[in-house]
Amino acid sequence: MLETIHDIGEFGLIRRIRTIIDSEGVKPEGLSLGIGDDAASFLPRAGREILVTCDSIVEARHYLPGVIAGYDLGRRAMTSNISDIGAMGGSPLYALVSLGLKGEAAVSEVEGLYRGFLVELNPLAACIIGGNVTESETPFIDITLIGEVAQGKAVRRSGARPGDAVLLTGATGRAAGGLQLLLHRPGDPGLFGNSLVRAYLAPSHRALFGRAAAATGYVTAMIDTSDGLAGDLAHICEESGVGAELFREAIPIDSGLRDAAGDLGLDVYGLAIGESDDYELIMTCDPRHVPDLKAEAESQGVPLTEVGRITDGREICLVLPGGEKRRVDYTSWDHFRR
Amino acid sequence: MLETIHDIGEFGLIRRIRTIIDSEGVKPEGLSLGIGDDAASFLPRAGREILVTCDSIVEARHYLPGVIAGYDLGRRAMTSNISDIGAMGGSPLYALVSLGLKGEAAVSEVEGLYRGFLVELNPLAACIIGGNVTESETPFIDITLIGEVAQGKAVRRSGARPGDAVLLTGATGRAAGGLQLLLHRPGDPGLFGNSLVRAYLAPSHRALFGRAAAATGYVTAMIDTSDGLAGDLAHICEESGVGAELFREAIPIDSGLRDAAGDLGLDVYGLAIGESDDYELIMTCDPRHVPDLKAEAESQGVPLTEVGRITDGREICLVLPGGEKRRVDYTSWDHFRR
Repeated sequence: MLETIHDIGEFGLIRRIRTIIDSEGVKPEGLSLGIGDDAASFLPRAGREILVTCDSIVEARHYLPGVIAGYDLGRRAMTSNISDIGAMGGSPLYALVSLGLKGEAAVSEVEGLYRGFLVELNPLAACIIGGNVTESETPFIDITLIGEVAQGKAVRRSGARPGDAVLLTGATGRAAGGLQLLLHRPGDPGLFGNSLVRAYLAPSHRALFGRAAAATGYVTAMIDTSDGLAGDLAHICEESGVGAELFREAIPIDSGLRDAAGDLGLDVYGLAIGESDDYELIMTCDPRHVPDLKAEAESQGVPLTEVGRITDGREICLVLPGGEKRRVDYTSWDHFRR
Repeated sequence: MLETIHDIGEFGLIRRIRTIIDSEGVKPEGLSLGIGDDAASFLPRAGREILVTCDSIVEARHYLPGVIAGYDLGRRAMTSNISDIGAMGGSPLYALVSLGLKGEAAVSEVEGLYRGFLVELNPLAACIIGGNVTESETPFIDITLIGEVAQGKAVRRSGARPGDAVLLTGATGRAAGGLQLLLHRPGDPGLFGNSLVRAYLAPSHRALFGRAAAATGYVTAMIDTSDGLAGDLAHICEESGVGAELFREAIPIDSGLRDAAGDLGLDVYGLAIGESDDYELIMTCDPRHVPDLKAEAESQGVPLTEVGRITDGREICLVLPGGEKRRVDYTSWDHFRR
């Protein structure tokens, strides 16, 4: 019979989690005290600022129960936090994980979650230093990720200036396409090899490129795409007090997304600029620094495309091939609104 | 009509929260970037280690919906984290708050929550620097609190040695007594002025004394009581590889708790050593340093009582007045076990 959390209890579960972290995770040099006390402690490095972000995902709201395995869910939850540290130009160091779990959940699924966390943290030499588990009818994962960046070098959302180029890594809308496929073809086992479905269930991040781009000193503003190309560009615009134009023909369209949009009868540009958590990076810079950032991207094998321009307006417009401008309404993607 | 989160949306709610934090919270010197970007950032002080803890509370599991107002709930959630930093001998600095909320929740309750957080943080010159809100059928609050401590001076659970005295601030079991009163007399409005009920709904912490005690250099191990006197002493014993004796007659009993236990037909010592989240501090030290710690406590007006002794055993025993020793079974307080 499947072993559940009820069977081994809270302290039994914590012991199992500690075993995985101790045996499969890394232990950075600066860590003075990890899991098992009232708080963890570490010694910050001189000349560095500490970055902190947190992000929570809730069952049914952020993921489909039964569709995504613990391991992928763990990767996805950690990836979204790593992406946030990368979007500041920083390096992840230490994670704390709070889990809300049903007592009847399988222990193996929770162990899978932690293996998913570690497979994302280990290559960055980052580790889990704390957290807690609690019983909750609605399961949730809340991660706090701590990172570091050279003092004064964090790239904010607020530095975009009119005339700046808007650059995008990779291609957006893939996660949204994957979600649409899962919703339209429930139970189709063939979907799990689909690249869009993989992009939705197990996204990657661009944190290493974010750090390298920030280190050039040319990036004026940066954000990762968890709300979508237009929605996240809007966050930059709001914090910088500017507007933006997106050149429709310049927006990179994934070939699989084009196919899926055709099959599903959806507008491929709607998917590419709309709500989608792809964890790509949007960055702005003076147009004369675009070649430098492209060269840096090329050296890392990261696709980087100039997709728009910052304006002195207040809104985001999509510029069609004929020059027509359409205002993009991204405010409709507010989750709590009914 | 009551304004709900559905009415103002996620971004509307975030704006309201930012307004409260900006206008009613403090802004420490080291904070370089607060709420509103992919991550917050701060500059750590030289010669300090960073402490991090997180704690989540879940509706129905940790608090009774409808019984506790947002303001008290916010105070309680923040207090439990402040207490953890204090139990390491540290000072709280920065908090991140993740909320899971029902869309039909009242905005005023959420604003009350934040005012509760701030009323606990402000006297410590600590502030909220990040977080997120998400929709969840089961409401939850997950707080990560970051603090600092002089390098090498954090007090762990693992330093207790056989022969050490066991000291306790205040009196334990009051929160458990308050909860029992609420459960036995549901709807009784007279309860809300009861000191035990207040101890349960709006507990205090001993973080300032924890810091002062750690600064003496005499404390060998320290923990705060969120599981209860025996349960948390057991955590010290487990991490230190020791056992402990609690002298029953030395355990401070709150007079209100004695009355309530009589009314409810409950064993007052069971309440005082059993599961109860009072956020008192348990600390151990060489017996010759007890007077120094008591003097420090007295200077802060904190009651500090010697309640037991660390042994070279592996279990926790309650020593009765006649000398009889009874083994305390605290493992029954594992929440997930059925």
